[in-house]
Amino acid sequence: MAAAARLALRARPLARPNPGVAALVVRDGVVIARGWTRAGGRPHAEAEALAGLDPQTLAEATLYVTLEPCAHQSPRGPACADLIVAARPARVVVGQHDPDPRTSGAGLARLEAAGIATALLDDPASAASLCGFLTRQRLGRPWVTLKLATSLDGCIAMADGTSRWITSEAARAHVHARRAQHDAILVGGGTWRADAPQLDVRLPGLEARSPQRVVLTRSAAPEAVDTIAAPADIAGLEGVQYLYVEGGAETAASFLSADLVDELHLYTAPVLIGDGKRALGSLGLANLAEAHGRWQLAERRQLGSDQFTAYLRTRTS
Amino acid sequence: MAAAARLALRARPLARPNPGVAALVVRDGVVIARGWTRAGGRPHAEAEALAGLDPQTLAEATLYVTLEPCAHQSPRGPACADLIVAARPARVVVGQHDPDPRTSGAGLARLEAAGIATALLDDPASAASLCGFLTRQRLGRPWVTLKLATSLDGCIAMADGTSRWITSEAARAHVHARRAQHDAILVGGGTWRADAPQLDVRLPGLEARSPQRVVLTRSAAPEAVDTIAAPADIAGLEGVQYLYVEGGAETAASFLSADLVDELHLYTAPVLIGDGKRALGSLGLANLAEAHGRWQLAERRQLGSDQFTAYLRTRTS
Repeated sequence: MAAAARLALRARPLARPNPGVAALVVRDGVVIARGWTRAGGRPHAEAEALAGLDPQTLAEATLYVTLEPCAHQSPRGPACADLIVAARPARVVVGQHDPDPRTSGAGLARLEAAGIATALLDDPASAASLCGFLTRQRLGRPWVTLKLATSLDGCIAMADGTSRWITSEAARAHVHARRAQHDAILVGGGTWRADAPQLDVRLPGLEARSPQRVVLTRSAAPEAVDTIAAPADIAGLEGVQYLYVEGGAETAASFLSADLVDELHLYTAPVLIGDGKRALGSLGLANLAEAHGRWQLAERRQLGSDQFTAYLRTRTS
Repeated sequence: MAAAARLALRARPLARPNPGVAALVVRDGVVIARGWTRAGGRPHAEAEALAGLDPQTLAEATLYVTLEPCAHQSPRGPACADLIVAARPARVVVGQHDPDPRTSGAGLARLEAAGIATALLDDPASAASLCGFLTRQRLGRPWVTLKLATSLDGCIAMADGTSRWITSEAARAHVHARRAQHDAILVGGGTWRADAPQLDVRLPGLEARSPQRVVLTRSAAPEAVDTIAAPADIAGLEGVQYLYVEGGAETAASFLSADLVDELHLYTAPVLIGDGKRALGSLGLANLAEAHGRWQLAERRQLGSDQFTAYLRTRTS
């Protein structure tokens, strides 16, 4: 299931508006087929994985799939549950329950009714690979990643606003790769007006992956850009499962204060700035205890001279 | 030589005012004796390592010593060069030249004159183990380590000054162990007056290792504490090879601005504070380029929930 969850990351974010799912077919401990949700959401992972396998092989095989197979037909293809019933693998192991009301248990029930053995896990790796889809379904909003690129002393720019460049080329390339994994990028109105950031993906071969751009502002929308007036309005960003918030300090603070950050991405350069611009505005904390216990280390790596650290939120709203 | 340099850390800081040296005697690739400078500076490492070895053994052995053997007799003991000449090991390998004018090459010359093979390395591990002594000799001041304990966004306290606690117990124990390795701890007058910090070593068995306390202030000296008026005055802190600067923000900035920080120790807790107190005051940087290239990663480790990162200065004044 862990291998399937890793494979599912390939589906992200092009599977939108569908969940990025992956499926593996295993026989005698060997992976004999695989699939993941393709661009635009079709074909589904199960259809890809099962295609071309003969009935005899499938009768001895287990299908691992990160999300419960869908139970609803659409004009774009059959329900995966029906596909699987027709293919008849010996067993189906599912990483996560699908909270979509059109499936929500009905997919597994259909397999069981057809006499196929099933197991429903609550697999954390599957959940992580589907975090945007699951957050959309459960909380009605995208999964939010907040990026901060700072000096060792927590500055995002010199006092005069200069911020090119605090972090290294390797760190910036990493940011561009992260952008390509998100459906939309958001900055505050101040950053938009001051820096006129491109917010695109400048990596060879990935230019076409530049996500939708969103500005947090009460002013009129700049061209070719969506706007929202408050962090809570991300719920209305249609089709956005993965939102990447890039600053500035007040925007970052407003998302944190609204408890709307699921993941923190910190890029830390080995420089000291002193009285530069801070990474964050006020978070309205009443005391230090309120700041503790919110973030859990998820990943750490060196990027050139800089350090990348990812934290996941420990509390859920 | 790397093993000897590691052993030399045991001599620190109790060897003061002498350098903390270590020596290993190796025969047929096996370490058969060792020594390091004892509390108060005597016995010297070489005397300890050579004691009790018979002439036949020594005739086939190599003595590794992190610092050139001293050439000057003192009322407290003979010159190590003379001791070695009398012991006659086959070979002596030295990690670092001793810049003390009473030795400075004379120690090695005496061995060579007696027909003992010698090799003088410029071993970085030996230099690191002797950094306080070497900095005293070469620059006339102690080696300075600046400690900063911050949130992920670079705050050292809440806006109201509350800082108990940002970092975890594991990080604080690490700080206490670092204090025990320094000859003196320095804080600014503001921190002294506001927090009345104990600045002692609160670790079982190490209470007696609490270092001398120094306050950076232009006001009158508090009791049992030394004062200096400016960072450059650390040159006058007699017998201090290793100085640990613990804050606050203005004191840290004044040492950084004066280019008097050799090593940075950062403790980073997984919390966000927002508009808290910053780690540093103004560094007087003219532009971002000036901030780059000054610090090189030396160590990184997890301490409970916190991260410890050490950087060494890359530029020397």
